[in-house]
Amino acid sequence: MCRWIAYQGEPIYLDTLVAEPAHSLIAQSLHAAECKVATNGDGFGIGWYGERDIPGLYRETRPAWSDENLRNLCYQVQSRLFFAHVRASTGPATARSNCHPFAVGKTLFMHNGQVGGYAAVKRRMEDLIADDIYPFRTGTTDSEALFLAAMSNGLAEDPVRAIGMTLLQVQHLMRQANVAEALRFTAAVTDGTHIYAFRWASDGRAPSLYWRQTPRNLLVVSEPLDGERARWREVPQACVLIAAPGQPVRIAPIDMEERRAA
Amino acid sequence: MCRWIAYQGEPIYLDTLVAEPAHSLIAQSLHAAECKVATNGDGFGIGWYGERDIPGLYRETRPAWSDENLRNLCYQVQSRLFFAHVRASTGPATARSNCHPFAVGKTLFMHNGQVGGYAAVKRRMEDLIADDIYPFRTGTTDSEALFLAAMSNGLAEDPVRAIGMTLLQVQHLMRQANVAEALRFTAAVTDGTHIYAFRWASDGRAPSLYWRQTPRNLLVVSEPLDGERARWREVPQACVLIAAPGQPVRIAPIDMEERRAA
Amino acid sequence: MCRWIAYQGEPIYLDTLVAEPAHSLIAQSLHAAECKVATNGDGFGIGWYGERDIPGLYRETRPAWSDENLRNLCYQVQSRLFFAHVRASTGPATARSNCHPFAVGKTLFMHNGQVGGYAAVKRRMEDLIADDIYPFRTGTTDSEALFLAAMSNGLAEDPVRAIGMTLLQVQHLMRQANVAEALRFTAAVTDGTHIYAFRWASDGRAPSLYWRQTPRNLLVVSEPLDGERARWREVPQACVLIAAPGQPVRIAPIDMEERRAA
Amino acid sequence: MCRWIAYQGEPIYLDTLVAEPAHSLIAQSLHAAECKVATNGDGFGIGWYGERDIPGLYRETRPAWSDENLRNLCYQVQSRLFFAHVRASTGPATARSNCHPFAVGKTLFMHNGQVGGYAAVKRRMEDLIADDIYPFRTGTTDSEALFLAAMSNGLAEDPVRAIGMTLLQVQHLMRQANVAEALRFTAAVTDGTHIYAFRWASDGRAPSLYWRQTPRNLLVVSEPLDGERARWREVPQACVLIAAPGQPVRIAPIDMEERRAA
Repeated sequence: MCRWIAYQGEPIYLDTLVAEPAHSLIAQSLHAAECKVATNGDGFGIGWYGERDIPGLYRETRPAWSDENLRNLCYQVQSRLFFAHVRASTGPATARSNCHPFAVGKTLFMHNGQVGGYAAVKRRMEDLIADDIYPFRTGTTDSEALFLAAMSNGLAEDPVRAIGMTLLQVQHLMRQANVAEALRFTAAVTDGTHIYAFRWASDGRAPSLYWRQTPRNLLVVSEPLDGERARWREVPQACVLIAAPGQPVRIAPIDMEERRAA
Repeated sequence: MCRWIAYQGEPIYLDTLVAEPAHSLIAQSLHAAECKVATNGDGFGIGWYGERDIPGLYRETRPAWSDENLRNLCYQVQSRLFFAHVRASTGPATARSNCHPFAVGKTLFMHNGQVGGYAAVKRRMEDLIADDIYPFRTGTTDSEALFLAAMSNGLAEDPVRAIGMTLLQVQHLMRQANVAEALRFTAAVTDGTHIYAFRWASDGRAPSLYWRQTPRNLLVVSEPLDGERARWREVPQACVLIAAPGQPVRIAPIDMEERRAA
Repeated sequence: MCRWIAYQGEPIYLDTLVAEPAHSLIAQSLHAAECKVATNGDGFGIGWYGERDIPGLYRETRPAWSDENLRNLCYQVQSRLFFAHVRASTGPATARSNCHPFAVGKTLFMHNGQVGGYAAVKRRMEDLIADDIYPFRTGTTDSEALFLAAMSNGLAEDPVRAIGMTLLQVQHLMRQANVAEALRFTAAVTDGTHIYAFRWASDGRAPSLYWRQTPRNLLVVSEPLDGERARWREVPQACVLIAAPGQPVRIAPIDMEERRAA
Repeated sequence: MCRWIAYQGEPIYLDTLVAEPAHSLIAQSLHAAECKVATNGDGFGIGWYGERDIPGLYRETRPAWSDENLRNLCYQVQSRLFFAHVRASTGPATARSNCHPFAVGKTLFMHNGQVGGYAAVKRRMEDLIADDIYPFRTGTTDSEALFLAAMSNGLAEDPVRAIGMTLLQVQHLMRQANVAEALRFTAAVTDGTHIYAFRWASDGRAPSLYWRQTPRNLLVVSEPLDGERARWREVPQACVLIAAPGQPVRIAPIDMEERRAA
């Protein structure tokens, strides 16, 4: 179980969300509230879009709360769209390549959740990754495998369809391997313009997901960054939030059945 | 606030205490119980006596809970006397040289507590360190400064006297600097044979300290390693526990007044 | 290209070879002599056999020359059989899980060399790893893949046969992928009793491999640890050195043809 | 001995100098040319001025050549004035707080050189640091001590005078301690507008220092970033280069005698 935030809107310094609020992401790395595990100290990462063709990426294995570089960087860097993530490992080692967000070209992905019985399906999940995507497999987490499988399913072109397909495929592998545990998936994807945030679990118990939109910006988060609950709305189970810049967000059901039929 | 354990007795593998018990030190790094802060994720260290003239030392900046090397090492290494410590920083950076235990020659020292208003007295505390001890000052913590000041006061020869003197000196510096916060000190010292464990605070609120002795060994700990409270005894405030190998421990008051008079 | 040493004989402290000699392994991490790259600063590792059922393992991403823990540990730990390795990456990231030696149960493996065109065959090499061995794949190097493929081919039972089979399989994959570069392999394997050290390359240009045996011990190394060249003997290309404890080493050709025929 | 570069001019991406040239700073971390030690693998740092009141800072203990974050960051960040440094330790530990550049407020400092016999004068050098500057002493290097002593001597107001005073003071301490080794100092200072680059040694053998100025920018470097020697000019021994934005650089002698007399 991890914690993450996604931002879209007027350019702001990253520390406005990552470091400053009472319940900032750095604060959550030490004391998360709506989380099975309270400590998210197994590394962290930020990904941001600036003036370059690909997003910037800073991922490190230290706990976010003690990383001077993270604070420094978030104080300097402005962005109109960025992801930030603090990690609580469900097994795989603490290594930079296991830290979120993951990137392929312009696409960023970050995840909170778990492939139940991952050890039993890890190898089959690797097979879901296309040959041309496989060189991007530099870590060992279920999250990165989900991302690269989704990339192989067209994540860059049709995120909702690609994620739906990938979740079906992984569920199938889990059934084949007689995994009793659930597949839980609360994740965000972006191409640098749109944000897609998914909340889905095979047992209907996906990790929390909130959003807040003002005329100036949109925030999508694992848990609210402040105590003002009323300002935050929850993304329902089995739904996806779709955000185009400057538009009201759209919430749609993730219709797995349709995909199953297709 | 940190957590630590000290062991003296028949040789055992370090993992017997560091990794295996339900409330092992590694478990405490993620979820301490009797602690202001529950997470002790700012590095850790072990120091152990083997067949060499000086103790072994392994200190690392990662959280103890995710360090494969720590688990491996504790599985391999046996010792009749060892210290282990998990750190929660009160300010100074996460760096190896700020991790406990600290070593000079045969002497090991580890600490849980805090010099209140450390920033205001840091420089004067450096002056308490003798010239020949000063090269051992490789970190920036109050704990290391306390240790090296005590070394300068004869810690290797008369630990109880040296610690008493050092606490008086630091209290004096704090008063000079108008520090209102307390000096709290729960620490262990060893020369590889005897263990001295101190519990003292200027406001009478020193961090917890427990011990348990059997015919086979002695354990001195920040908090019990299991749920069986009845098996553990508390070291009273303002007392020192003195342990010679194979002898019943002795608890004595830390008589600061006597020292003040001297 | 990396540097490594393997020791078998009377128990010695690891620092005798890792830290002390003029051309110790730590010295080689900064200035290797017989090496395409002079700096081996992309992590290191030691594996040693003590009194436990499995070997100890300490692997770290820092350069060996600046790791206090390595010096401390090598000063404390004695062993009758150990491996030590300093890494110069040929591509994969600097991460603990990419550091040698690699371990599965009682078996240790370390490698100097390269699978030419690794990116083109990486995925197929994963398929050489048996399902029950696959969970040990925690890194991303060609070296670890070679080891786990060999484990799948019976490395624990018949090392010479398993390595021969594996090299043939990988060569085959490289040909299929039209890789023009060579497969070069200078590696050591042990079960805690015997050492097998291989020197082979598809283009006949395997990295250097030396040994020195006295009545007290055997050393197998990438390059001599001192300036006395006359005391060291070279393992010829396409040969394996086989060492049983207390016996003269045996050098045998690695007969790939025989295997190809089988 | 370390390697560094300082840039002033039109905004450029940092990777233009840090990562791209044949003899970029990252390349120098592995293979420096004009250096007693060829490997500068004991950490690195960059400091850059953007739109904030203080410069950005990213310092890490890994070798620069293997740090993905450094490459990523230098690809994203643009600046009109930045410092970059790769470190080869002369003793003090590999730690972030020992990596250059060092920062106090708007001022950045980086150094290549050495206080000969540092262990003998370390403590006295600490005494050169003013009380209000002392809290910035977070590491243990001679370089940081030189910087903070110079800050105490007015580095932010009159860099040439402050450095001159500091070098005299340190030389004096070295003489008192009967240090036979030299004080060597090739360093750069900036307030975000002007650059001052010093080359001085007590034995007249200060490390190399080059510069190149075009209408668009100024580069000051330990050694040329390309093979075109003719394009680079050397700063003479015992001189300081002073660079105001958009002005031709000025080279002046560092008149220690005058200072001594004052």
